[in-house]
Amino acid sequence: MVWAFCMALNVGLVGFGTVGKSVARLITERHDGLLHLTHVCSRDVARRRVDWLPSEVCWTDRFEDLLTAPIDAVVELIGGLEPAADWVSRALEAGKAVVTANKQLVATRGGALLALACQHRTELAFEAAVGGGIPIIRGLRDGIAGDRIRSIVGILNGTCNFILTRMEHGGVSYAAALREAQERGYAEADPSEDVDGDDARAKLSILARVGLGLELEPSQLRAQSIRPLDHVDFTYARRLESTIRQVSRVALRDNAGEQIEARVGPALVPLSSPLAAIVGSRNIVVTTGDYGSETLFAGHGAGGNPTAVAVVSDLVALARHGARWVDVCPHGAKRTSIVSDAPSPHYLRLVVNDRPGIIAGLAGVLSAHDINIDAVLQEPGNPKSALPFVVTLESCPESTMRRAVEEIAALDFNVQPPLCLPML
Amino acid sequence: MVWAFCMALNVGLVGFGTVGKSVARLITERHDGLLHLTHVCSRDVARRRVDWLPSEVCWTDRFEDLLTAPIDAVVELIGGLEPAADWVSRALEAGKAVVTANKQLVATRGGALLALACQHRTELAFEAAVGGGIPIIRGLRDGIAGDRIRSIVGILNGTCNFILTRMEHGGVSYAAALREAQERGYAEADPSEDVDGDDARAKLSILARVGLGLELEPSQLRAQSIRPLDHVDFTYARRLESTIRQVSRVALRDNAGEQIEARVGPALVPLSSPLAAIVGSRNIVVTTGDYGSETLFAGHGAGGNPTAVAVVSDLVALARHGARWVDVCPHGAKRTSIVSDAPSPHYLRLVVNDRPGIIAGLAGVLSAHDINIDAVLQEPGNPKSALPFVVTLESCPESTMRRAVEEIAALDFNVQPPLCLPML
Repeated sequence: MVWAFCMALNVGLVGFGTVGKSVARLITERHDGLLHLTHVCSRDVARRRVDWLPSEVCWTDRFEDLLTAPIDAVVELIGGLEPAADWVSRALEAGKAVVTANKQLVATRGGALLALACQHRTELAFEAAVGGGIPIIRGLRDGIAGDRIRSIVGILNGTCNFILTRMEHGGVSYAAALREAQERGYAEADPSEDVDGDDARAKLSILARVGLGLELEPSQLRAQSIRPLDHVDFTYARRLESTIRQVSRVALRDNAGEQIEARVGPALVPLSSPLAAIVGSRNIVVTTGDYGSETLFAGHGAGGNPTAVAVVSDLVALARHGARWVDVCPHGAKRTSIVSDAPSPHYLRLVVNDRPGIIAGLAGVLSAHDINIDAVLQEPGNPKSALPFVVTLESCPESTMRRAVEEIAALDFNVQPPLCLPML
Repeated sequence: MVWAFCMALNVGLVGFGTVGKSVARLITERHDGLLHLTHVCSRDVARRRVDWLPSEVCWTDRFEDLLTAPIDAVVELIGGLEPAADWVSRALEAGKAVVTANKQLVATRGGALLALACQHRTELAFEAAVGGGIPIIRGLRDGIAGDRIRSIVGILNGTCNFILTRMEHGGVSYAAALREAQERGYAEADPSEDVDGDDARAKLSILARVGLGLELEPSQLRAQSIRPLDHVDFTYARRLESTIRQVSRVALRDNAGEQIEARVGPALVPLSSPLAAIVGSRNIVVTTGDYGSETLFAGHGAGGNPTAVAVVSDLVALARHGARWVDVCPHGAKRTSIVSDAPSPHYLRLVVNDRPGIIAGLAGVLSAHDINIDAVLQEPGNPKSALPFVVTLESCPESTMRRAVEEIAALDFNVQPPLCLPML
């Protein structure tokens, strides 16, 4: 066996925004001598420099200064693909460990960067890239490494969860909930990356690598936006003893991992499920394994301090245990492009200009696709010219459902495109 | 920095009961070559030997055979203090890593055994000692190592949780729920260790060491039995929008960790809390940190396979990362004997022989102790000779409450001892 021991790490920080400031504060408030912040690299140093960091900390706007300095670990917090990918590569090539919170970088370049880290006998750590302060990467990689994981289901995007729980509990529209999220700093001026599912897809592909050993391009994963949701959907969901969450899910269909199911998007979840209990900007991940069954991790998925906890925990692990140059998937991740769609019951909400024959037309299309109707729900008190109602459907593959919905959308009684959600 | 790498581990298993069999199965069903089961040490080998293990596995009833064999890690699953303590010590002294599920051993001898492991540059790992398959030890030690943990609250005993949730959802008596737990193998013939809190105290003292750096003797921790609970308590709890769980809690009162609060026992928890959602034999741990706020870990707290996942995950971590001879608390755990009692609102249930003046007598004692009454609840339909009713009380220290309850218990209208529970 090989023995590792504690040693103090010199840390260089790249990026000094909200998370960067929190990381600097957490490091300087520790009293165990494990971490020394020696460099901060940021644009516009003169304006960004703060007086609460020790005077020995060296400020620079040139990343190259970190490569030549006696730094053990570089913390990358600038986000985006470039120059982050270039800088992370050069740090690894210089033999420095890298800790990053950059989910897009890890999701799209993770394979190559992890291989580079192995090659240079150093480590790329990324606990902060998924689930903020929740130690889910370490949980999957080490904590339940003895299990054989089958599926990973989670709420991975705090912005969507804030919007959806405001719609659920505040009875407000999507637009109003989004505005509130923007005012509180939970959503960007252009919220596409969050609400259309790109952010969650990147995180899900990282979890699929660590937990299931799969190499999945985020763009391979089907994503559905939460934009078409209306607060009436929460009323109907409640009648079905459910609520709506943006759910990210990846699951193996067979032992070889050649058949997988993966999806990001709004879904009905039972009120009794742990997903329904996650409100506001919190995150949750539920893993299912052959031996340990369900294990659940939850906490604050975003924000400066929780994200900084993840970064600093990675640094502490490096100091205590040394860099681990094993790849995250010891034998390399398995590339797979066979992404099957999961069969599930569906919730189909229509808004129609009411007239006789609507159910008959709808039933005809569904029956042609071999989809069975479970129930028809209609809340009173809506105008006949824009009447919402819901049909629940027995389990069928998502692709079958999609084709049926396309045909239904073409029927002339619709005054809005139909909304179809899986029911978990 | 020091670099660790993967190497295959030879594993010797001591104890071949339910968990031992599961561990053997998980190891032999892995295909990554990291773990080799080379020895099984058990009493009565002739009777216990199984045909599904590879024929190379060496069976023995002499622990000494493992010390001289080329084994890297010894898995101790015999439970109890002796001979487990002696065997674990000798394995560590022989430079072997030890993985154990033995909570009493780690709780009462953990400090000495961890020091011994350090001294011999090897590791004592004990993920399986708390929370079955939930990776809570690793979560506290590594996953949120960057945070400053303030409190740890959990449901740590699956037997109590099974009994309490049967009383809650099945409306059955304590005795009936216990019998059911015994029939299903969730409770021992003598259930004292579980229902009186010893098991949870041991686990809480382990979590206090790993998460808060405190050295707490389990016997220092106040424990209250769940035996006096009646199903009427669940009726009253529900009227208070709460339910009842065996809650284990340890919290720092100050930064130095000299003032701590610690308690194991039944408590009212709000229905909206994550603790209320934990049913059956599941476990949960919720940590609160200065930076990351609440982080939650939940899953299957007992059973052969979930416990085996924890054992095998410890072995995989040893194989991947090498033994870590840092103590769990890098600078040694802080010994503390100052265990303060937490102030909280209380639930006080009395069963009385009804007559005028009872509330006046009760109110007199409470007022003498400066305890304010919040509300008096009485469900209809009970005989006057054994009338249950509940008084909720505003926040006061547990010790004050205890003295008041002693006086109340001496009043002549009681037909059962009063039951007092904290409300979280």
